[in-house]
Amino acid sequence: MSRSVLRAEIGEQPDVLARLLVREGPAIRRIARDLARRDLRFVLVAARGTSDNAARFAQYALGLTCRLPVALAGPSLVTLYDSPPRLKGALVVGISQSGRSPDVVETIASARREGVPTLAIVNDPDSPLAQAAADVIPLHAGVERSVAATKTYTAQLLAVALLAAGLSGSRKFAEGLGALPDAMADALGTEPAARRAAARLATAARLVVLSRGLNYPTAHELALKLKELALLEAEALSGADFRHGPIALAGPKLPAIVVSPPGTATEEDLAGLADELRRRGSPVLAIGPHGRGSLPVPRLPELLSPIVAIVPGQLFAFHAARERGLDPDAPRGLSKVTETR
Amino acid sequence: MSRSVLRAEIGEQPDVLARLLVREGPAIRRIARDLARRDLRFVLVAARGTSDNAARFAQYALGLTCRLPVALAGPSLVTLYDSPPRLKGALVVGISQSGRSPDVVETIASARREGVPTLAIVNDPDSPLAQAAADVIPLHAGVERSVAATKTYTAQLLAVALLAAGLSGSRKFAEGLGALPDAMADALGTEPAARRAAARLATAARLVVLSRGLNYPTAHELALKLKELALLEAEALSGADFRHGPIALAGPKLPAIVVSPPGTATEEDLAGLADELRRRGSPVLAIGPHGRGSLPVPRLPELLSPIVAIVPGQLFAFHAARERGLDPDAPRGLSKVTETR
Repeated sequence: MSRSVLRAEIGEQPDVLARLLVREGPAIRRIARDLARRDLRFVLVAARGTSDNAARFAQYALGLTCRLPVALAGPSLVTLYDSPPRLKGALVVGISQSGRSPDVVETIASARREGVPTLAIVNDPDSPLAQAAADVIPLHAGVERSVAATKTYTAQLLAVALLAAGLSGSRKFAEGLGALPDAMADALGTEPAARRAAARLATAARLVVLSRGLNYPTAHELALKLKELALLEAEALSGADFRHGPIALAGPKLPAIVVSPPGTATEEDLAGLADELRRRGSPVLAIGPHGRGSLPVPRLPELLSPIVAIVPGQLFAFHAARERGLDPDAPRGLSKVTETR
Repeated sequence: MSRSVLRAEIGEQPDVLARLLVREGPAIRRIARDLARRDLRFVLVAARGTSDNAARFAQYALGLTCRLPVALAGPSLVTLYDSPPRLKGALVVGISQSGRSPDVVETIASARREGVPTLAIVNDPDSPLAQAAADVIPLHAGVERSVAATKTYTAQLLAVALLAAGLSGSRKFAEGLGALPDAMADALGTEPAARRAAARLATAARLVVLSRGLNYPTAHELALKLKELALLEAEALSGADFRHGPIALAGPKLPAIVVSPPGTATEEDLAGLADELRRRGSPVLAIGPHGRGSLPVPRLPELLSPIVAIVPGQLFAFHAARERGLDPDAPRGLSKVTETR
């Protein structure tokens, strides 16, 4: 197989996680301790593209661990309508690989001018976003040369999980955190199965990616990778919403990927949905469960499961791109920085 | 053309809006006045399905008029993880046609137990949701017999717009509100063009629906109608996000609907995107602009434009279903109440 920058970056993820844990773990605990002293009522997250899926994860992670409501900033409210939200009681978080998306930078800058706590989760520590925020969590993921984000996405999730663990004061994730780099390495071992699954499913015109709860963001991120890399018309849906309506589309022409790591609250429900899809004739690829044809994911505390559950999906998307004759290192029509205003 | 319950309900919308304005306008102003006296920091909205698109609209409408951050409740946080958000400083709004979605009812009920203000926007005034909330805006849309929501969706948007106008204390929408029923009737006049467009585009395997800002929820609602009624694989995307990545998929096989009512902040940007799509070979249906082949929408204050901009889309989805040999009154696999827990 020819070398690929994207594939190399996917493979770096165990090291990236280990580095982030060591280099920023104590600093994030300190930031979280300071924030926990403030009378935070809610969190506003600004992000675009892949980072938007890290923002979705923040919504579940902070809701579950700290019962903090999380609003996703409609960036156009600031840059399109010049109507930034009132932020009394808010923690405002910007998540961006490059730290250069103008709307994310502007949301953080205007929040800081208002005097509320601001936090940047960003790979480039010299970027405008890092400079705009009062606190910064640098991801130390190394330069990400691929247009499709992989290692910076999982690093963003880990930063959010560390923040959530710190804000909640809970120590119950400590053990799981230490196990993450190895779990990530295990997940990389699904590559042969991911390649076979890609050969089987990549001819589909479209597919759906289903999950629920904490891994609903994983479904969105995987759908985005499939669109970016394999030009597949992939759509992410909550298993609950899918059951209500679009399940009418199920059948041999609509393959489904069901993301359901072991030990999560939604495991049984999603297994039932996968069975229902198979009955209706949809080819199903399960990410999470052990079993023939599925891409297993190691068992972790549910809060941490999305960090690893995306990895078999990244590998699937990479091989789906190759199956479809596309170069995963040069996706058509994409640029690295979302210049949305 | 044979009679259709759905088509009849689409046609009732001018009357539904007029009735809601008369019967609830003063009451909503009173509710808004009382709420404006409280120290609201943010709004949490619980909704599912079509009502979820009304919630997206609330995010823009309340952000723009009142600068209130709006978080969409992850219903599974309450019912799946038993981890309801802390709500100090929140207004909690439940939006539902039937008032019977268990997760929406439970989110409102638990908020009321916490003592924060709660509001139900609901068609059935005797439903569990109406009983759970401290304040209720009944929609007076009459029984909605179709499984696909149309008249209750636009009534929900109007209720949200009235709430936003009331909370902001602005009177500048008063004139636009009075013009709404007639504008709605005008929009119904696009039916012949909508039918022609459906004949042209309904054979597509999939299509994208694009918009930005206040009409981004319109794009989502139209995509949902196309999936529900016409079993079309329709996906809603922000024009900004589409430009960044999925535009790589543009071409003759990917028709695009661009929702861009006249006089909105995003009009020029979306017109440019439509041109770019045409250059790349995608068949484009514009909803909003006047011009050959497009489905025009009357000019209204931008806050109110989504209430009318969905109507040509509803008509398009209705005729697309018929073109595809489907019965819009009996969509496959759908039930009226989302029983998601």
